Amino acid sequence: MILNHRAIAKLAGIIITMLGILMLPSWIVSLIYKEFDAVNAFTAVIIPLILLGSFISFKIKVDSDHLKVRDGFAIVFLCWMLASFFGSLPFIISGYIPNFFDAFFETASGFTTTGSTILTDIEKLPKGLLFWRSFTHWLGGMGILVFAIALLPALGIGGQKIIKAETTGPIFGKVTSRISDSSKILYLIYIGLSVIEVMLLMLGEMSLYDALIHTFGSIGTGGFSNYNDSIAHFDSVYIDVVLSVFMLLAGTNFTLFYLVLRGHWRDFFKDSELRFYFLIVVSAILFITFDLWIREIYTFGGSIRYSLFQSISILTTTGFMTADFDLWPSFSKMILFILMFIGGCSSSTSGGMKVIRILILLKMVKRGFALRLHPRAVVPVKLGGKVISANTVSAVTSFSIAYFGLFFLGMILLSLDNFDLLTTVSAVAACLGNIGPGFHLVGPILNYSIFSDFAKLLLTILMLVGRLELFTIILLFTRQFWNPDK
Amino acid sequence: MILNHRAIAKLAGIIITMLGILMLPSWIVSLIYKEFDAVNAFTAVIIPLILLGSFISFKIKVDSDHLKVRDGFAIVFLCWMLASFFGSLPFIISGYIPNFFDAFFETASGFTTTGSTILTDIEKLPKGLLFWRSFTHWLGGMGILVFAIALLPALGIGGQKIIKAETTGPIFGKVTSRISDSSKILYLIYIGLSVIEVMLLMLGEMSLYDALIHTFGSIGTGGFSNYNDSIAHFDSVYIDVVLSVFMLLAGTNFTLFYLVLRGHWRDFFKDSELRFYFLIVVSAILFITFDLWIREIYTFGGSIRYSLFQSISILTTTGFMTADFDLWPSFSKMILFILMFIGGCSSSTSGGMKVIRILILLKMVKRGFALRLHPRAVVPVKLGGKVISANTVSAVTSFSIAYFGLFFLGMILLSLDNFDLLTTVSAVAACLGNIGPGFHLVGPILNYSIFSDFAKLLLTILMLVGRLELFTIILLFTRQFWNPDK
Repeated sequence: MILNHRAIAKLAGIIITMLGILMLPSWIVSLIYKEFDAVNAFTAVIIPLILLGSFISFKIKVDSDHLKVRDGFAIVFLCWMLASFFGSLPFIISGYIPNFFDAFFETASGFTTTGSTILTDIEKLPKGLLFWRSFTHWLGGMGILVFAIALLPALGIGGQKIIKAETTGPIFGKVTSRISDSSKILYLIYIGLSVIEVMLLMLGEMSLYDALIHTFGSIGTGGFSNYNDSIAHFDSVYIDVVLSVFMLLAGTNFTLFYLVLRGHWRDFFKDSELRFYFLIVVSAILFITFDLWIREIYTFGGSIRYSLFQSISILTTTGFMTADFDLWPSFSKMILFILMFIGGCSSSTSGGMKVIRILILLKMVKRGFALRLHPRAVVPVKLGGKVISANTVSAVTSFSIAYFGLFFLGMILLSLDNFDLLTTVSAVAACLGNIGPGFHLVGPILNYSIFSDFAKLLLTILMLVGRLELFTIILLFTRQFWNPDK
Repeated sequence: MILNHRAIAKLAGIIITMLGILMLPSWIVSLIYKEFDAVNAFTAVIIPLILLGSFISFKIKVDSDHLKVRDGFAIVFLCWMLASFFGSLPFIISGYIPNFFDAFFETASGFTTTGSTILTDIEKLPKGLLFWRSFTHWLGGMGILVFAIALLPALGIGGQKIIKAETTGPIFGKVTSRISDSSKILYLIYIGLSVIEVMLLMLGEMSLYDALIHTFGSIGTGGFSNYNDSIAHFDSVYIDVVLSVFMLLAGTNFTLFYLVLRGHWRDFFKDSELRFYFLIVVSAILFITFDLWIREIYTFGGSIRYSLFQSISILTTTGFMTADFDLWPSFSKMILFILMFIGGCSSSTSGGMKVIRILILLKMVKRGFALRLHPRAVVPVKLGGKVISANTVSAVTSFSIAYFGLFFLGMILLSLDNFDLLTTVSAVAACLGNIGPGFHLVGPILNYSIFSDFAKLLLTILMLVGRLELFTIILLFTRQFWNPDK
């Protein structure tokens, strides 16, 4: 048997049950605000989900707890598909997003922490539904799989194989020896940061509801807001700064926070990826500030303020906005466009290619020069003084090629909708990189409602493929995967 | 001594002399058409060039004919710089392109077989100058270095190291054992094809002058025309087809023609790169035809005609145009945009990344999948049944990363001119890939005159860097290159 069908089916049951349970907070929010259409919609989804999920997971007996790499990939894929599919039901049933492709897009955009929306008037939705919409960011943020990993050992199913497909970035630090332990620690750090952020936002006169929504959006690097004009709604420097700091933290490798908790500050700042991440952020902020100021778009203070927020928002692939950067000069826009491809650090909640891969790619170019001069030399790729294995280098390379390949393929297919090239290119970059807004017709104050159902499905797939780091999904469609002899 | 200065200086003298001699045909054309401003300009350039060049090359005694890899790179760089610099003088002195940056752009665009122009009204220029402008395509086509390689052994300087920097593409077939022999054969094939094309174009009622201009433009995959509306001027299906065939041939690996001459037809069609090249061309033509036809841009016949010509023109990085493809639907434009990055085959006169590299990159993605499933397996990259060495794979990878890195860097710098993103992105892609026209403000019926001097210089550098396959030029600016211990 190629896949451990029983274990996978049992897990699907657990995921469906959990999804029902995870909708309860949104149900409560709807109740508090007396939005009975939303309450009814949630009730109509939660009860069947919990019943169906429990039935599946109790009925199925797992005869082997042995999971192979293949099973891990299948489970990860299934997890995100089920969550996005069933998670879209409250939107459809309540009638606020009646079209399936729209609702699927919106929910996948939430779980993949992309933040692209098809809504033309966000504020028309009930607060309970908007809460669910943003809560998917928070769930997706650390990966709904982290739940499963923390739970799996208790179910007698080893989770060791899953983390490979789940964690973002090529290197997952061996923080603790047991994966379920480390996932629990990451999970606690995630909750801790969220609690602190909610409190800090409330200090800035945000309501608890708004604070939760925007914490979900920033810690998960998602970008959904409950306001049409996103963070510009608050027009508060304090809130800009708090969100910037937490977006930056959310784009940092979470295993580094564990080092900090243990008091290893030095190791934290010695991390090559983190340094390069900071270098990129600071450079982007400086260049954009200068461009906005010199071309007199804003005052000097305003230039710093908007440049800082937008640079961090885009690099961390969050997608919150405080200014309509689609109106900025080309130089600033181009920098933001390129940040879209980079993304945050590995093992963070951000999307994009990840800083560490960019770093390794640049090291490979350097090696390329050396090899041109000394064709027979053996020149290893080093990072932070350590030699990177040929396998990792090869994985980074094939990932990057696949990323750009998919980017080009996505552009070709999306162009069938016949929107201008800038809209098309930036929509694909923004969805594949899990950012959210793009440029022109999908700019920060606009949305993805213009696209056809086909295009929305395509963009949804790109979000999922981008979030699961390509290979997890594409692999499932290769012959190799389904060939038991290989 | 890091570089063999004397040999390099002597060669520079030879190049300058030859450049003067190579201007003679244009001088004669000017005489025939009685364009005395052009005649005077050429005279004022040719005589000093020949005198200066001869003086340098006769004065300098070469005490060592030993050339290292480093020298090869320096010579190639020098060759293209000198040709583009001194080649621009007739335009400046005649007053037809008075600005140095414009003239340098135009000449480098010629020698690099790019075909981007800063001229707003091409037809205003004298025929002699337009002849020189197009002749640079022909010279640049096979590489002015081929001249040097064929001549070098006669000068007592070994040319073996130069071909490494000169030939386009990662693999140079060992067609004959001696490099100077093989370069002579390539040179003869090049001339042979040119003669045939001139005759075929004249059969289509072109004047000898027009036939020469457009042969230079197509065999060199350059794209300069002497008409403002390029090939659309002739509005002849026959001419479209002849040019398409020769563009396609010019984008083919020239060493394969040697196989054909020897009667090895089977080896010709077994070449993996050639097959993939044809696959790309045919797919592009089919998709674009379908798009143009279904959206009723042209009749079915017209759709085939314009799709065929433009697909080949862009893929081979020629840049001739028969239709204003900037007005085409997004799907067609997107395909053309992606073709810009691919380019023709290795060891052809085309630019871009080259088909063989794309093929190797795709194979690497395939290997990436295999390694995800079997992390410890050793999976080689194969092409045409043969294993590609790790060094070649690594060279292809670092080239590709550098190509995209430079593309992004170029976009950022060009965006300082504050034109829209599509104009900026496509201008960089078109110059780096040696194509010619881009989209929007640098679309096929427009030109590069809109840019500032800084931007023109940047684009000129991108053309040179793209033509010399990046490393040759960038290498010269690295510390490694100038460090004698390395």
